[in-house]
Amino acid sequence: MDITTLRNTNPDHWFKAAAIRALTLDAIHAANSGHSGMPMGMADVATVLFEKHLKFDASAPRWPDRDRFILSAGHGSMLLYSLLYLTGYKDITLEEIRNFRQWGAKTAGHPEYGHAEGIETTTGPLGQGISNAVGFAMAEEIQRARFGKKIVDHYTYVIAGDGCLMEGVSHEAIGLAGRHQLGKLIVFWDNNNITIDGTVDLADRTDQVQRFKAAGWHVQEIDGHNPEEIDAAITKAKSTNKPSMIACKTHIALGSSAQDTSKGHGALTDPKLIADAKEAYGWASGPFEVPADIKQAWEAIGSRGAADRAEWEDRLAAISGRKQEEFARMYALDAPKKLSSTIRALKKQISEEQPKYATRKSSEVVLEVVNPIMPETVGGSADLTGSNNTKTGDLGIFDLENRGGRYIHWGIREHGMAAAMNGMALHGGMRPYGGTFMAFTDYARPAMRLAALMRIPSVFVMTHDSIGLGEDGPTHQPVEHVAISRATPNTYVFRPCDTVETAESWEIALTTKETPSVLSLTRQNLPTVRTNHTQKNLVAQGAYVLAEAEGKRQAILIATGSEVEIALKARDLLQAEGIGTRVVSMPCMELFEEQEDSYRKRVLPAGPVRVAVEAGVRQGWDKWLLGERGREAKADFVGMSSFGASAPAEVLYEKFGITAEAVAAKVKALL
Amino acid sequence: MDITTLRNTNPDHWFKAAAIRALTLDAIHAANSGHSGMPMGMADVATVLFEKHLKFDASAPRWPDRDRFILSAGHGSMLLYSLLYLTGYKDITLEEIRNFRQWGAKTAGHPEYGHAEGIETTTGPLGQGISNAVGFAMAEEIQRARFGKKIVDHYTYVIAGDGCLMEGVSHEAIGLAGRHQLGKLIVFWDNNNITIDGTVDLADRTDQVQRFKAAGWHVQEIDGHNPEEIDAAITKAKSTNKPSMIACKTHIALGSSAQDTSKGHGALTDPKLIADAKEAYGWASGPFEVPADIKQAWEAIGSRGAADRAEWEDRLAAISGRKQEEFARMYALDAPKKLSSTIRALKKQISEEQPKYATRKSSEVVLEVVNPIMPETVGGSADLTGSNNTKTGDLGIFDLENRGGRYIHWGIREHGMAAAMNGMALHGGMRPYGGTFMAFTDYARPAMRLAALMRIPSVFVMTHDSIGLGEDGPTHQPVEHVAISRATPNTYVFRPCDTVETAESWEIALTTKETPSVLSLTRQNLPTVRTNHTQKNLVAQGAYVLAEAEGKRQAILIATGSEVEIALKARDLLQAEGIGTRVVSMPCMELFEEQEDSYRKRVLPAGPVRVAVEAGVRQGWDKWLLGERGREAKADFVGMSSFGASAPAEVLYEKFGITAEAVAAKVKALL
Repeated sequence: MDITTLRNTNPDHWFKAAAIRALTLDAIHAANSGHSGMPMGMADVATVLFEKHLKFDASAPRWPDRDRFILSAGHGSMLLYSLLYLTGYKDITLEEIRNFRQWGAKTAGHPEYGHAEGIETTTGPLGQGISNAVGFAMAEEIQRARFGKKIVDHYTYVIAGDGCLMEGVSHEAIGLAGRHQLGKLIVFWDNNNITIDGTVDLADRTDQVQRFKAAGWHVQEIDGHNPEEIDAAITKAKSTNKPSMIACKTHIALGSSAQDTSKGHGALTDPKLIADAKEAYGWASGPFEVPADIKQAWEAIGSRGAADRAEWEDRLAAISGRKQEEFARMYALDAPKKLSSTIRALKKQISEEQPKYATRKSSEVVLEVVNPIMPETVGGSADLTGSNNTKTGDLGIFDLENRGGRYIHWGIREHGMAAAMNGMALHGGMRPYGGTFMAFTDYARPAMRLAALMRIPSVFVMTHDSIGLGEDGPTHQPVEHVAISRATPNTYVFRPCDTVETAESWEIALTTKETPSVLSLTRQNLPTVRTNHTQKNLVAQGAYVLAEAEGKRQAILIATGSEVEIALKARDLLQAEGIGTRVVSMPCMELFEEQEDSYRKRVLPAGPVRVAVEAGVRQGWDKWLLGERGREAKADFVGMSSFGASAPAEVLYEKFGITAEAVAAKVKALL
Repeated sequence: MDITTLRNTNPDHWFKAAAIRALTLDAIHAANSGHSGMPMGMADVATVLFEKHLKFDASAPRWPDRDRFILSAGHGSMLLYSLLYLTGYKDITLEEIRNFRQWGAKTAGHPEYGHAEGIETTTGPLGQGISNAVGFAMAEEIQRARFGKKIVDHYTYVIAGDGCLMEGVSHEAIGLAGRHQLGKLIVFWDNNNITIDGTVDLADRTDQVQRFKAAGWHVQEIDGHNPEEIDAAITKAKSTNKPSMIACKTHIALGSSAQDTSKGHGALTDPKLIADAKEAYGWASGPFEVPADIKQAWEAIGSRGAADRAEWEDRLAAISGRKQEEFARMYALDAPKKLSSTIRALKKQISEEQPKYATRKSSEVVLEVVNPIMPETVGGSADLTGSNNTKTGDLGIFDLENRGGRYIHWGIREHGMAAAMNGMALHGGMRPYGGTFMAFTDYARPAMRLAALMRIPSVFVMTHDSIGLGEDGPTHQPVEHVAISRATPNTYVFRPCDTVETAESWEIALTTKETPSVLSLTRQNLPTVRTNHTQKNLVAQGAYVLAEAEGKRQAILIATGSEVEIALKARDLLQAEGIGTRVVSMPCMELFEEQEDSYRKRVLPAGPVRVAVEAGVRQGWDKWLLGERGREAKADFVGMSSFGASAPAEVLYEKFGITAEAVAAKVKALL
């Protein structure tokens, strides 16, 4: 490894890559924090990729047919910001680079989706980017099958580090990509043998090459600082019909005194180290300065794709008007016009027929009418298709022989499913939903949180949402999971009580553009309680009066999902004793919170005692029980304060005291 | 595959295995739920393992040197219950088998640790058992290094299914086992090619043999119904010094009409199917009946290890009294007598010196005095050693050359770390603690929940516990994670405000026997606020008056961790305006909840306005703000209601309004 030789062999390449390295050093020095080593190590790979292969146009960052570049090793964010600045993306100015990691800057510590065009996904939590990428690549396949190769034909490139490959979710992602032979997915592994604690082999000695081969990948091993090898490897990877992993042997913090050390992984801020490294690079410019010729060369790369894009626009203009409209609608996340009338018709039918369905079945009933009119939905389940009721007749199974299939058998991979769903949503043109048991939101949580943070509308269909799951026992019975979902900012948690509310919940989940949804659905059957048809979507108000008190209103019962039935029975008991009791159904606390104060006060007026019933923990309920400023009501809660147990559902409700009798007794104790 | 041939070739083996199959069919028929296929498929492997290899004594299920048997594919619980019943474990009677999956039965839907002796860990959430097993095997190595081969020398056996191997956490576990060459870990893969949704290749085509080899494992492939092959493979696996995977080709639901189908994965309850299967087995006994000779043969297996155990008892009796005492103390989870005086001495020193430490540093200071006197602690970090401050000088690094090392470099594997820590705790003789960033509790949650459910005292050291993490930005800043941990039953969440509280928190975490702890620790420095030394552990009360109001008490500020400093400053502001203000530090809500009502009322008397301040979401706070029955106080909260941002910590506190001024203003608005 001789910097001078590298520099002299291919100065044209070298100085383009050196610009990334110098900007990285300067930005991290200014911020006094960040991760220098990774951009310094992977600058050569990134330069060759952007210069010779990546299909993009910096002036049109949302071009739907661009290649995607995903920095899974998100701590190396200065690599991405440097590339975006150098190639001329408008959002990332030199000023933004100077303000790296400062309040209000688009250049956050880790790449944040939505902060700047050109950031395809939020990364930092390791393993997420490579798993998102599987969803991007699947989305590309599905859209290509639908709109044809002239409209959709792009690659998904990923830079992943040792951390990404150690995280369990990478196993799920790699297995999915291998299974589905996602040939347009190309992963660069930054094989620098360094983690924060030391050399990789302190903790891991996996043969990554064999590991990827075992999962069905095409694998190459190259010197990650040799531009010819990098170029050739990318060319070859593009030509295979398997997903490709290119193991790039690199030196972290290349050319600095911290090269090949775990110190080099972190923030290199020592002025002498920085000066010495720049000297080794032959980089004579001042901080944040890029010589004009080098910047121009990079900007030429940034506009290299403009002609391609213009041709693509022509091809798009040549397809049928209906197809063009559909393409635009899907990428704009606009629901089809027919959606609301379809939902209303279903609600009317249900309120008349009044079936007794588990809400997971209700959800299937909704999907059966929605999926045929919303080609952008892509469904799936983590090996619980028959339990989650996520598959409808028209979807077709996504497979090698059916790339347009809209149902994914995700396998026993809740985390990989959620991360890939996020990738699909980020790719554009689709609304993914996927199912597992509510208790296993635990496995999917890191990706569910990122959906909320990124403001993308992934829909998580979480069935078997309480002790009502029954015999499988406490490992499978969610108790705290509804509260956990509610604790997460920017997440709608729907816990519908019957098929009508389920339809209304789905309508919101499928029209919102910036909020993921968690549908909390029962295993057990529930009666239809919304027997009076309303055009209006009542779930959109978050909570509403389902049954009014007869006589003087002394008590308000608040319930969600399967416990609404219990609240209604408790009301019967109380009314029979002359205690006027209102029942409020509260399928979505977040939407109720968004309502005007006057509406909320009408639903939950001060005065009457309040008892909430939900087969989960109390956390999150006190606000509605006690009033946001307290003092509003005497109140109590019927729910769970421990883990569940293994027994038939009805026994568990009885034993844990979640019954109409218990609710009525609490009311009477408060009065 | 011909049942009759199998039966005739080795009837002695066959009928022992058939007993498992028949009991499985009967129990699942009676429960009308469960998973029949796996026990029917793996009965041969289990029979050979228990008959010829497993070192155990059914009459002494807690014998510390027994081999461990872990059913990672926990849905096949009837395999385990059948084995425990047949070999004569007292807890699992025929009555318990008859009551499979019923209220109060020890035979829950999935094996629940603590329900019956012989259940080594709770399984069901897939991938957990195999990951626990890595901790079991590490614990064996560590204890063997410490007490010698005569006292500790046992294997850890696992049965894992396709689901376990698809889950990401299995990748983390397999990598760890390979890295550390855990030669006494032997995993049987139930290679039946069936999942709930269909054949495995619907979702996965990974070459598991190559995958395990890539991770450094010894791999064999056998016919899982051939007792000779099973026996030979186990013998060979025991002789290698690598972890072993034995791929057992099996037929799910063997011998029934549902064999080799995903129907066979679930509950086989059709009487004709059951009758036909039993006929194929040559099993003529009635439901729940095991012929006496077969039961006796199984019971002989159950007592096969009695002599071994007696010899072991003799060997234990022969080591030094001090060593025997230490061994007994460690396995009883009794803290050393010196612990409390050591903690008290540290508290006294700190209250005098009053250092300004981040609580992650405080934690290190505590561990520096605790680890030398508690040889049962085993520390580690998921590649954030220097950030989590989990490593102390005396521990030594666990490695091939240092099997007694007490510090584990877990790698970038938060989930695998937590699951393996649980395995260590379950193995006995050790108290594991491990660190990562608080935001990445998301990755570890499935295992953290199981620690709580199993009632084991794993300690999760979660640093960088708020926006105080600063520049790394919202992906790394916990906002909802303290609430999430608090929502989980049977979990102590400690958020100490200085070094004294950190020491008190650690004292509780290291003495409790049935509750896992989450230590929520800061990145940023905090002053010592406990400057008056108390012998008493105040954290043990959950919350206490840190600073009393001067003059008439008009307000109570409640705070945790890094926000206690802010509350104290707010008190200064308010007192300067003559508003008498009490500050309550609340480092552990769960312990406060355990206090007597009278104590809680003394700390939080009705009347004064209350403002809580915590750099996280409000969820979980209303109970203390508004009073458990409401109406106690006018109250408000200062904290986060959105995700964080990337900027220096002090800027974030200012921008998100978590300041003394904001707290004081809220108080004045309420008065």
